[in-house]
Amino acid sequence: MKTKVDINCDLGESYGAFHMGNDRAIMPHITSANVACGFHAGDPTTIARTLQLAKRFNVAVGAHPAYPDLMGFGRREMSLTIEELRNYVIYQVSALEGFAKASGIQLQHVKLHGALYNKAAKNSETAQTAVKAIKALNPNLIVFAPPKSALAEAAAKAGIRVAYEVFADRAYNPDGTLVSRRRPNALITDVKTIIERVIQMVKEQTVTAVNGENIQLGEVDTVCVHGDTPEAVNIAKNLKRALIKAGVQVKPVRAFL
Amino acid sequence: MKTKVDINCDLGESYGAFHMGNDRAIMPHITSANVACGFHAGDPTTIARTLQLAKRFNVAVGAHPAYPDLMGFGRREMSLTIEELRNYVIYQVSALEGFAKASGIQLQHVKLHGALYNKAAKNSETAQTAVKAIKALNPNLIVFAPPKSALAEAAAKAGIRVAYEVFADRAYNPDGTLVSRRRPNALITDVKTIIERVIQMVKEQTVTAVNGENIQLGEVDTVCVHGDTPEAVNIAKNLKRALIKAGVQVKPVRAFL
Amino acid sequence: MKTKVDINCDLGESYGAFHMGNDRAIMPHITSANVACGFHAGDPTTIARTLQLAKRFNVAVGAHPAYPDLMGFGRREMSLTIEELRNYVIYQVSALEGFAKASGIQLQHVKLHGALYNKAAKNSETAQTAVKAIKALNPNLIVFAPPKSALAEAAAKAGIRVAYEVFADRAYNPDGTLVSRRRPNALITDVKTIIERVIQMVKEQTVTAVNGENIQLGEVDTVCVHGDTPEAVNIAKNLKRALIKAGVQVKPVRAFL
Amino acid sequence: MKTKVDINCDLGESYGAFHMGNDRAIMPHITSANVACGFHAGDPTTIARTLQLAKRFNVAVGAHPAYPDLMGFGRREMSLTIEELRNYVIYQVSALEGFAKASGIQLQHVKLHGALYNKAAKNSETAQTAVKAIKALNPNLIVFAPPKSALAEAAAKAGIRVAYEVFADRAYNPDGTLVSRRRPNALITDVKTIIERVIQMVKEQTVTAVNGENIQLGEVDTVCVHGDTPEAVNIAKNLKRALIKAGVQVKPVRAFL
Repeated sequence: MKTKVDINCDLGESYGAFHMGNDRAIMPHITSANVACGFHAGDPTTIARTLQLAKRFNVAVGAHPAYPDLMGFGRREMSLTIEELRNYVIYQVSALEGFAKASGIQLQHVKLHGALYNKAAKNSETAQTAVKAIKALNPNLIVFAPPKSALAEAAAKAGIRVAYEVFADRAYNPDGTLVSRRRPNALITDVKTIIERVIQMVKEQTVTAVNGENIQLGEVDTVCVHGDTPEAVNIAKNLKRALIKAGVQVKPVRAFL
Repeated sequence: MKTKVDINCDLGESYGAFHMGNDRAIMPHITSANVACGFHAGDPTTIARTLQLAKRFNVAVGAHPAYPDLMGFGRREMSLTIEELRNYVIYQVSALEGFAKASGIQLQHVKLHGALYNKAAKNSETAQTAVKAIKALNPNLIVFAPPKSALAEAAAKAGIRVAYEVFADRAYNPDGTLVSRRRPNALITDVKTIIERVIQMVKEQTVTAVNGENIQLGEVDTVCVHGDTPEAVNIAKNLKRALIKAGVQVKPVRAFL
Repeated sequence: MKTKVDINCDLGESYGAFHMGNDRAIMPHITSANVACGFHAGDPTTIARTLQLAKRFNVAVGAHPAYPDLMGFGRREMSLTIEELRNYVIYQVSALEGFAKASGIQLQHVKLHGALYNKAAKNSETAQTAVKAIKALNPNLIVFAPPKSALAEAAAKAGIRVAYEVFADRAYNPDGTLVSRRRPNALITDVKTIIERVIQMVKEQTVTAVNGENIQLGEVDTVCVHGDTPEAVNIAKNLKRALIKAGVQVKPVRAFL
Repeated sequence: MKTKVDINCDLGESYGAFHMGNDRAIMPHITSANVACGFHAGDPTTIARTLQLAKRFNVAVGAHPAYPDLMGFGRREMSLTIEELRNYVIYQVSALEGFAKASGIQLQHVKLHGALYNKAAKNSETAQTAVKAIKALNPNLIVFAPPKSALAEAAAKAGIRVAYEVFADRAYNPDGTLVSRRRPNALITDVKTIIERVIQMVKEQTVTAVNGENIQLGEVDTVCVHGDTPEAVNIAKNLKRALIKAGVQVKPVRAFL
């Protein structure tokens, strides 16, 4: 049985005067922070401040690279060449790694953002390109990926550590993919339900899909919580407690992968 | 007498489909390349290609950070806070450092670009902020700065190596600053004159200002040639030959600083 | 005595997924909306939605052009050439005018944003350039300007209508300029004080400066309230009521200029 | 038999210091200019200068809106919502219309750019959304579209005039679409061949596809020449002469549609 799990959250998504999320409130309740790198969100000052905050709460830090689409928040599929994708990933992860270095901390992981994450989850070429870029930069970085995804496979094949990730507040299709945000039932909002689902995902390695079917997830290393919903802080706090109560240690993935 | 000098050039200033400069032709004739970092020019693919080209010709590579102003090519003064400036420098130099790492080379130096270079040359706060940011990231980086500038002073004070830089094709004011590009006599275009001036600057540590006065420059470590003028390649090639003929070795600054 | 005044507010300052301000709540309480044009804030969809909202509440609409600085929210001085400034103003005001046309409404005014507003208030060249650009596009547009400013003067000289603007929640220097936002006493937060000051500004054409001195403002046409502070809606609502109670009609400037 | 045709070219694709194309040289040889609007290329000053140049040579002007992707020059497919696409088109066409107004000329047409043109050519929803946006702004604008495309159909259905467009230097598939630029035979470079093909397309309303088959195009209103190839000026100049010699008048589409 799984006895250790990480709680991750997308943070540092403000941009200059544009404030997003509630980083200060959620940081104490997570173990890994995925920090925006400037392409979909996250200007340099936001990055620097987010890393200071993460350091203060001893939260592990990862880069959260995206498509170059500030206007669309990296949520829109873009058809990039392999060369473009490779270099966009290197650029963004490098920027984060530099801030980590300047802050006296080490980058733990890379989690692709939004439409890029979704593309890499199912497209082998995208997945392999992203993984190669990450490896060229730092082969010790851990890649966050959905269980059984093209991304997880590409990382494993390249000899890069993978953290299998599930989403606390998202509904799952029977094939293990997330229900699209455009569907009305994409998000689970009830805190109690969220916590029960996560406990099941972590301890039993299954999740109940939208059709009621129980699907196998395999081992779960990290649980993604959202930082931009009203209930986010509450969910993160209670989820951590519930996991600990259920006998699961909550730690950054670097502690057990 | 000075027996070693570096020839540097601003390269990698294309941006996506927007082509700028003549990097391929000039690379064989220089010893250090200042590579745009994405803020005034230089998308990630341009950065990657420029580093490959530099590696092939054994040219040392530096970051060329700028104000966040693609539309103005980093040539327009912007009033940033200290925190903003610090983080913009870290972001850009980090990005370059990552590409260098992924290319198996080491970043040699940082040369600020355009309006930021000019501001740091004369403003101590700007200079100190930039130097601190560079030092926090990598204290082995060499800072390119005009002789006797606030930037050179800030770097020296912070214990960071400085490469004193002169400009091959720019006219000088009696106070040692460059004649503004908006003035008709700002640029020197005659190849022979350019070469004679550089030999004088390097060997005699003086330059003839626009008023005819000979001014003291102090030791010169690196000579900037431009890559975007029609004569650029010709100038770089002939300058290198003339320097060698005059008994000056042409090498990247890391070889002698 | 002044019997009519406009209440304006900067709106439409969201950008894609980055939400800013509380447009829906404040719109019913103002008479003119200054709509961001995409350079400091305001992506096209935000513009379109803001105009729909303004139309619904019968609020007059103006363009709110800025420096091209999304990362700095247009609050940072940039040194533009006359040609650049002219064209940036035309571009932004045109974009807004097109959306107005597509929404079946007419653009009422132009209010420069942030650092550009401040520059045009005191610099004649900037003011004249902006005014000329506006006039070339549509000579019926009204320019918002501080009383006695270079901008007001430039508009008057060019035969463009000026709306003299005061700020409801900002402290004034004895020379009639605003106390810089970097000073601790720049903002007035007490609702009662704000309302009293505005009534005085509108009816007596004077304001009490930070040194206690009463300064002459001249005629006041429009009062700017902020949309991004927690108290904004409350201030706008109560200010409108108080003005009406004091015998001042609250109407868009086009109704009386 | 067709006796009138327009020659159009994408112009104004520089961006600040990034120079692209050879507008000055090609302008005298075309009758319609598609002017970049700032999303894939074309900063405001470039737009203003391009319109001045067009006016000087009596060339009709159109807006050339694109996906918001400066780094990819608008050549990469992006998955936009209908609302986003509508507003991006309005924003860009409005900006151009404003500059036209300020220059004392009238916008003649809209030609979508790059990946957006290709998408609208085959996707009805994209085509209808773009056409609706254009119509909301100005129902007198002419839409450039490939013969038999979804875009042409959408415009016709909406009561907007369509100019059927062919490409002078591009190879055609048997289904009437362009051979992808990624294919080696996508571009036709021989000037004589280009001219013969265009004469055939205009006069006989057919084109020889890559498989040797002669396909029906229907009536051709405008021929696109490129401005960024070395031979561009030469092609445009000779094409115009050859068309006139063949008894076809070369005029902007507004003159005969």
